[in-house]
Amino acid sequence: MRIVVLAGGVGGARFVRGLREAVQRWHPDSSIDVIVNTGDDWWLAGLRITPDLDSMLYTLSGQNDEVRGWGRVGESERVSAELQAYGVTPDWFTLGDLDLGTHIARSAWLRAGLTPSDVVARLQERWDLGGVRLHPSTDQEIDTHVWVASDTGAEEDLHFQEWWTRYRAQVPALRFEQRGVSSASPSPGALAALAAADVVLVAPSNPVVSIGTILGIPGMREAVLAAGSLSATGRAPIVGVSPIIAGAAVRGMADACLTTIGVETDAGAVARHYGPRAGVGSSAGGLLDAWLVDEVDEPLVAGLRADGFAAAAVPLWMRDLDTAAALAEAALATASAASAG
Amino acid sequence: MRIVVLAGGVGGARFVRGLREAVQRWHPDSSIDVIVNTGDDWWLAGLRITPDLDSMLYTLSGQNDEVRGWGRVGESERVSAELQAYGVTPDWFTLGDLDLGTHIARSAWLRAGLTPSDVVARLQERWDLGGVRLHPSTDQEIDTHVWVASDTGAEEDLHFQEWWTRYRAQVPALRFEQRGVSSASPSPGALAALAAADVVLVAPSNPVVSIGTILGIPGMREAVLAAGSLSATGRAPIVGVSPIIAGAAVRGMADACLTTIGVETDAGAVARHYGPRAGVGSSAGGLLDAWLVDEVDEPLVAGLRADGFAAAAVPLWMRDLDTAAALAEAALATASAASAG
Repeated sequence: MRIVVLAGGVGGARFVRGLREAVQRWHPDSSIDVIVNTGDDWWLAGLRITPDLDSMLYTLSGQNDEVRGWGRVGESERVSAELQAYGVTPDWFTLGDLDLGTHIARSAWLRAGLTPSDVVARLQERWDLGGVRLHPSTDQEIDTHVWVASDTGAEEDLHFQEWWTRYRAQVPALRFEQRGVSSASPSPGALAALAAADVVLVAPSNPVVSIGTILGIPGMREAVLAAGSLSATGRAPIVGVSPIIAGAAVRGMADACLTTIGVETDAGAVARHYGPRAGVGSSAGGLLDAWLVDEVDEPLVAGLRADGFAAAAVPLWMRDLDTAAALAEAALATASAASAG
Repeated sequence: MRIVVLAGGVGGARFVRGLREAVQRWHPDSSIDVIVNTGDDWWLAGLRITPDLDSMLYTLSGQNDEVRGWGRVGESERVSAELQAYGVTPDWFTLGDLDLGTHIARSAWLRAGLTPSDVVARLQERWDLGGVRLHPSTDQEIDTHVWVASDTGAEEDLHFQEWWTRYRAQVPALRFEQRGVSSASPSPGALAALAAADVVLVAPSNPVVSIGTILGIPGMREAVLAAGSLSATGRAPIVGVSPIIAGAAVRGMADACLTTIGVETDAGAVARHYGPRAGVGSSAGGLLDAWLVDEVDEPLVAGLRADGFAAAAVPLWMRDLDTAAALAEAALATASAASAG
């Protein structure tokens, strides 16, 4: 079974780690390709920072700081203190020393002419990811900016990282702008993985600035909907996992992002935002064959089914590797059912 | 008194620190401008490394590691281990974490369009250098390469840093090549400081790859010889301090460099390599009005005087701040005598 996942950073990485565990336990002949959001990426002090790809890299290689939830374990921040003393980075964004090694390597390789896909492949050479292959969603740079109302009432834009890290998404966002997205295209690895996919999973990542950014790359939504064209079945089911439980984001600040695009912070509302996938041969419709909500949201299931989703309620909290593996297994089982149905 | 110093890295920095002490004790109205060698600079992993300027910056700001002799005190090397693990830097060149903060800041500013002179000025804003102003010798990039005989007998070139740091200058150098030097010019700060100078001191730095590289910048030798054109005296004496004591380099591997250019490792031979300065109005001749050798080299003084140098023997070993200040004061006194004579 060839599994492709669309994912953002920390939550997506935990989901993929659980999926890897499920595959190793129960589907040892399967493969996992992850299409990772690059919309949070930015240039800082001449270094290319790719938070979601790095969260994935560190989590899958066992280098993630499990207590803090992000970054490298055993991290220090000596260089960052220097950069702030020189005034070359802001005081609200700290880079770990070990993490900086990755950023410096990445930036050097990009400047040497490697594509972001090449760089991700080269970074993976150092680490054992247990067979998981990571792909940036695109090789073009997309800068997410957030428009907010300034003190004077005029609109001004912040880089996403400033809005997210400095203001903790507490400044109401009027809208998101994906600079560079119109001339972006899916990365070669993402397209190849989708074409060969037997199943596509949408991780419980931010539906707006992670999954939404991936799907907003011209050609990506079409490629996801066409996933499996080169597989045995010809059509890979697409199963999403809700990042919302009982009306609240599992982690991160997805609620602020959903509010901005006019979507309620509700597992059902997010499913309807993605939309139910149309039948074979229909050009209209949304993305998802199936949608998993948490057990506490079980009352939403009947309505979602009525709206065309193969919905199910399962435990969504990834408390440890076992619960994450069980969730991933539930997603695969749902995909299998959706495929048969 | 306006003092200008031509200097390389570690030895030059110790000399300038002594000079600053002498100025603070005995010439409080004087200024010090240092024209620092940039021929050791290189790009590594997308970062611009400027060893001599940094040695000067750290030594004059009290951040130098006095035990090791170079780099920042309290240094660690966590990032460098990462860079080597990714294979983006060689295992024979380690960058300190604190030092990397400087390199990242410098590189970011260079990419933002600042000149090397701008960058040096901005780096100095953070540190108290006690009034000393640092100038890169040039704003153009000069890459020093070292030609050596390969195992097969063919000639091949190494970057200076590889020859110096990896091979400790133990591979015989056939010749040095200063790439980019023909299109380089002295930095604006260097030219302005020289024009206003009352005295020019040549630090006891490597005569070949430090002082030689500075003087090899088109227009620099002329600017040094014309130093003081805008000063009260109209002609600044040029006083050099020998980096060779009793036929051996005080520090570093100057002997290997001197051998390559056919100069004996001898305080007198180095003076003659620089050459005695011609009288006012003469277009021929060398660089130096005066030359200081160590007391153990006193037997060389008579011959040097016969060859046109205002030579003197004084204690050259900079064992501490007092001895370094005394050496600098001797250089200033020699300049004063040369000026009067």
